[in-house]
Amino acid sequence: MKKTDGMTQEELDARHAEKMKKKKAAREKILATKTEEKGLIIVHTGKGKGKSTAAFGMAFRSIGHGHKIAVIQFVKGAWDSGEKRMLEKFPEQVTIKAMGEGFTWETQDRNKDIANARAAWDAAKEAILDPENRFVLLDELNIVLRYDYLPIEEIVEFLSEEKPDDTHVVITGRNAKDELIEIADLVTEMTLIKHPFRSGIKAQEGIEY
Amino acid sequence: MKKTDGMTQEELDARHAEKMKKKKAAREKILATKTEEKGLIIVHTGKGKGKSTAAFGMAFRSIGHGHKIAVIQFVKGAWDSGEKRMLEKFPEQVTIKAMGEGFTWETQDRNKDIANARAAWDAAKEAILDPENRFVLLDELNIVLRYDYLPIEEIVEFLSEEKPDDTHVVITGRNAKDELIEIADLVTEMTLIKHPFRSGIKAQEGIEY
Repeated sequence: MKKTDGMTQEELDARHAEKMKKKKAAREKILATKTEEKGLIIVHTGKGKGKSTAAFGMAFRSIGHGHKIAVIQFVKGAWDSGEKRMLEKFPEQVTIKAMGEGFTWETQDRNKDIANARAAWDAAKEAILDPENRFVLLDELNIVLRYDYLPIEEIVEFLSEEKPDDTHVVITGRNAKDELIEIADLVTEMTLIKHPFRSGIKAQEGIEY
Repeated sequence: MKKTDGMTQEELDARHAEKMKKKKAAREKILATKTEEKGLIIVHTGKGKGKSTAAFGMAFRSIGHGHKIAVIQFVKGAWDSGEKRMLEKFPEQVTIKAMGEGFTWETQDRNKDIANARAAWDAAKEAILDPENRFVLLDELNIVLRYDYLPIEEIVEFLSEEKPDDTHVVITGRNAKDELIEIADLVTEMTLIKHPFRSGIKAQEGIEY
């Protein structure tokens, strides 16, 4: 992570100009060749099912390709034990950080929730900056952002400026913030059309968790 | 698969009535207890990404729970090599049937395509009827149905009447037919909000395949 503390306005402007110049060059290159590979910022949002599941599907796919990956859990209890067990089968490729203690509606302690969110975000930054990781899943980060437990500006700035070029970052959760959608390369909204809970069927192993 | 050949109309009607009676009883039970577990018919459709990926995520989750599963590929080439490699790591739990030869826009031979679709559907029925399988993924079946390579009535009848009660069947692909949505328990539409191909970034390992 680059430090911005102590930089003059001029230095900050120069840095921004350099970034933009690089961005422009990158975009021109993309337009010219259409063969650019780059690490994407991907968002899965919406009220439907499949947001985390599709992200885990991508994680497993990445494992299948032999990549190293990291998964950061921003809301405890949101996870499926089947997914966890699968990830744990690949200890040499997978880093799992299950942060938080089950929060908001469970802890009912805003300060504790904010401290948990901060700890999870610190782990996320570390995972993203680790050049070994090709894929980092920030599961349910949108929930934390929605409650303003972390400032969206900080997340957006980090992802835009500090994320290594060849690392994919996938962010899941309902109500993705506009600022995040703005910087994302790929955004998919999962829309619920029909749901069995409406007919009273309980959550079940392998489907819901 | 139960045989309907040689049954009189009276027998068919009686069978239908019995089915409906069972269905009604099951629904009443569900409404009464709200704790029913049953094998779901799940559809992932829409133009967005994540339809197959979320289905594979569910498959891997099911593997994590120790279940046996089957995956039937209705369109060759639609698959990610990472997913395939991951599935192949669990040969005792996973049956893979990669059917078809890459069709419609590749074979340009309608009769061949129909024969391939039929063979894949036969494999699908066998996998669904196998009581060992808890989860069966019919990947890109919607594409085949859209081109009317298989009669939708036959698929709907089989899934409604022959699918074992505790087997989950997940069907993916754009343009899911209304008749399928009708009988499904859970339908999610993946909607594209932003896509990197628009900015000319090529498909890349771990993300697109």
